[in-house]
Amino acid sequence: MSEIRVAVIGAQGRMGSHAVAAIEEAEGLALVAALGSADSLDAVLDAQADVAVELTVPRATEDNVRFLVEHGIDTVVGTTGWDAERLSRLESLLAEHPGTAVLIAPNFSIGAVLAMHFAELAAKYFDSAEVVEIHHPRKLDAPSGTAVHTAQRIAAARSAAGLPAVPDATESDPHGARGAVIDGIHVHAVRQLGMNASEEIHFGADGEALTLRTDTFSTSAFMPGIITAVREIGGREGLAVGLENYLTL
Amino acid sequence: MSEIRVAVIGAQGRMGSHAVAAIEEAEGLALVAALGSADSLDAVLDAQADVAVELTVPRATEDNVRFLVEHGIDTVVGTTGWDAERLSRLESLLAEHPGTAVLIAPNFSIGAVLAMHFAELAAKYFDSAEVVEIHHPRKLDAPSGTAVHTAQRIAAARSAAGLPAVPDATESDPHGARGAVIDGIHVHAVRQLGMNASEEIHFGADGEALTLRTDTFSTSAFMPGIITAVREIGGREGLAVGLENYLTL
Amino acid sequence: MSEIRVAVIGAQGRMGSHAVAAIEEAEGLALVAALGSADSLDAVLDAQADVAVELTVPRATEDNVRFLVEHGIDTVVGTTGWDAERLSRLESLLAEHPGTAVLIAPNFSIGAVLAMHFAELAAKYFDSAEVVEIHHPRKLDAPSGTAVHTAQRIAAARSAAGLPAVPDATESDPHGARGAVIDGIHVHAVRQLGMNASEEIHFGADGEALTLRTDTFSTSAFMPGIITAVREIGGREGLAVGLENYLTL
Amino acid sequence: MSEIRVAVIGAQGRMGSHAVAAIEEAEGLALVAALGSADSLDAVLDAQADVAVELTVPRATEDNVRFLVEHGIDTVVGTTGWDAERLSRLESLLAEHPGTAVLIAPNFSIGAVLAMHFAELAAKYFDSAEVVEIHHPRKLDAPSGTAVHTAQRIAAARSAAGLPAVPDATESDPHGARGAVIDGIHVHAVRQLGMNASEEIHFGADGEALTLRTDTFSTSAFMPGIITAVREIGGREGLAVGLENYLTL
Repeated sequence: MSEIRVAVIGAQGRMGSHAVAAIEEAEGLALVAALGSADSLDAVLDAQADVAVELTVPRATEDNVRFLVEHGIDTVVGTTGWDAERLSRLESLLAEHPGTAVLIAPNFSIGAVLAMHFAELAAKYFDSAEVVEIHHPRKLDAPSGTAVHTAQRIAAARSAAGLPAVPDATESDPHGARGAVIDGIHVHAVRQLGMNASEEIHFGADGEALTLRTDTFSTSAFMPGIITAVREIGGREGLAVGLENYLTL
Repeated sequence: MSEIRVAVIGAQGRMGSHAVAAIEEAEGLALVAALGSADSLDAVLDAQADVAVELTVPRATEDNVRFLVEHGIDTVVGTTGWDAERLSRLESLLAEHPGTAVLIAPNFSIGAVLAMHFAELAAKYFDSAEVVEIHHPRKLDAPSGTAVHTAQRIAAARSAAGLPAVPDATESDPHGARGAVIDGIHVHAVRQLGMNASEEIHFGADGEALTLRTDTFSTSAFMPGIITAVREIGGREGLAVGLENYLTL
Repeated sequence: MSEIRVAVIGAQGRMGSHAVAAIEEAEGLALVAALGSADSLDAVLDAQADVAVELTVPRATEDNVRFLVEHGIDTVVGTTGWDAERLSRLESLLAEHPGTAVLIAPNFSIGAVLAMHFAELAAKYFDSAEVVEIHHPRKLDAPSGTAVHTAQRIAAARSAAGLPAVPDATESDPHGARGAVIDGIHVHAVRQLGMNASEEIHFGADGEALTLRTDTFSTSAFMPGIITAVREIGGREGLAVGLENYLTL
Repeated sequence: MSEIRVAVIGAQGRMGSHAVAAIEEAEGLALVAALGSADSLDAVLDAQADVAVELTVPRATEDNVRFLVEHGIDTVVGTTGWDAERLSRLESLLAEHPGTAVLIAPNFSIGAVLAMHFAELAAKYFDSAEVVEIHHPRKLDAPSGTAVHTAQRIAAARSAAGLPAVPDATESDPHGARGAVIDGIHVHAVRQLGMNASEEIHFGADGEALTLRTDTFSTSAFMPGIITAVREIGGREGLAVGLENYLTL
């Protein structure tokens, strides 16, 4: 079986440079192009890449992906900034290019993706559910996008199962210790020097607790997810949002 | 819709007395008989029970279940002691009684059952996997049956995915700190006063960790599992071993 | 050495009934009176108690303690509601009764008291510090008094060591995920069915974390603290607030 | 106040290169020499260093420290291999050089040192105590030296307080799941890819748990301990083993 030819766009960033190294080491993958911000996307075509890994910045990503799809190149996207409008335009474009696939993954950590999936499965069996995320103190927003997404998926699963609101008799909370409430699920954000990105999902029922914890210590944690996506995308078409769509669960 | 009529056998034990109370409170369930060790199983028939919950002792359970199956009563069994030979005899008996179902559940904690299922799904995505269980210090055996079962299922999932052995460079371990090795998975047993039953399943990959933890604080933790099984068994037939077979996952 | 004669006041409450049992079992202690709300305090005198354990309600506790001090009986108090004014009145009273001691302990859990003490010692060595408390969902107030007290002691220790504010670049937190801020320390309150009372104190520095966790599973957790206080109070005099004053640390 | 002049010996190793950077950044400290394995120790004298930080290898460290003490230079040692015989020779040497100090620290992580100190203080208040350490799977020995030392100190504190053996009814443990037993304390070693060095110390009593956890994510975790030692050693003399001797606890 021949190797998958991979181009990395945004190869000079932190994620990009890790991806370059990971692709070079991965069995069955060949790195054929590594583009920086000054390089033309034509290099991806010249290199006859099968798959592109797009790891740039929000303002560049949509144009890049459009160009790649128009040239029939399957693309794994790790850049953020894909709102509903952008996704809708991309879906229309992909409809005109059958056989081409795009995976947009807000989080390439397989552990985080699994934890979210497990949370969704567990949600209906527990009265209480809460999310605590811990990040480095340089983070600008709270709570993390992953924590918000986790809470939303738990809430949707509870709702689908007909569960009532989580039990909570709090009458007095003058300083807001009960945290953010996202679709009825409480979310807490801890900022701690020395930590990178962790999430703890708490489920409680009478006499019982289930806790799912995921820790991402470094950028290398995202490489298995990227490699899995690159290997998997050849057999797909159309748009998928979320790495979980490419995992066997 | 009419209520499910439930008989509890072994109603005076710790699990049994909790089950009696839980069934009395559960919507859609009616407790119609609660048998102690001196009572005849005929009371189950007299009470026209739809479902029996068998929570007795290893030496009594097989005869009880045989009687119930022969009378067409679906039975949820929480008693231990069902070895391969007993299970095989029960399967033969059930084949003669189509439409009757038996669920044998070594663990009614939904959290523990979910954690084991999640561990099985996660296993192939991580290089490292280890199990730490924590129980009260009155426990006679180590490791716990649940921990052994968890390790076996992780090992089977790794094997099916073609994973190599877990990485471990240990050369010197004079006192056995690396714990028990069950099918290649290390299992550690902590004994701690004040704890009841907890299990922590550790998965590790480059730059990443996923931890699944389940805590069972009291006997009441098993009631939701029993109630779920009682509600579900009417639509089943034949033998199932493990509560996970009755959950929607 | 003769036994310490102990009277329990408020013996019919949850804490009180546990205390009665614990004192009866404790070596070197003799339970000589167990008073309910209808009983006269004279019974403590009649029984020639050396020590009283006061576990009643906020509106009764001050009168009870005054009576006991006036009769020279050392008293261990677990009732809440002792504000600055009450404490001040009690100190004046104790000044008139040298040789008599009162210990007021908001928390008899030795684990919780130790964790708070350790937090105070550790505070100056870490850039980041945060508190997460987890309680049952019937709790009316958030955060817990213990968590507030912990945050205050961490803040004071940081201040004494000349530490700057905890690092936190958060710019956007629309739903309050960063929780309560007590003297500059963030405090988060989780409410979870199945849990009783837990606290996790997080310390972070470059490349490092220290986490102190204390779990109180049941009322029995408070008994060793009460027994320790009863044994210790004979050699003390005056007012002490906080069990830590009676521990050897 | 003038700066402390610091020389690093073993400046090209992983710890050494981090130490060089940390000393350069630390307020009040001046890096005046950074020696590799080929450099002569005379460079330390030429640079008029006040303090040396010795981070070399077991076979070089004793000669280095002897030379430094003979020249009156206070020395902070992070190299392992200091057995009882070497320590005894060093003590004799220091007796001949009053005013000179040596600190030998097997672990410069302040979190780990604090956790061990707290474990020692807590030990006498809990019936159960156990240690679980988690390290990267390249580690050759199990359990870690820190875990062994922690267990020994817990055992000594229990013994001093007259505590009996930890409660443990285990009768059947065919695969060694109860782990290593160090002075009566059970120690478990987990090996997990993605982790660096963590330790969890479990204490249990009726209805209660206290857990001390320390995580060292990277070499940078040791720098605050080294900087603290360098700042502190000027006011000391003689030999100290363990960073805890230089902390205010």
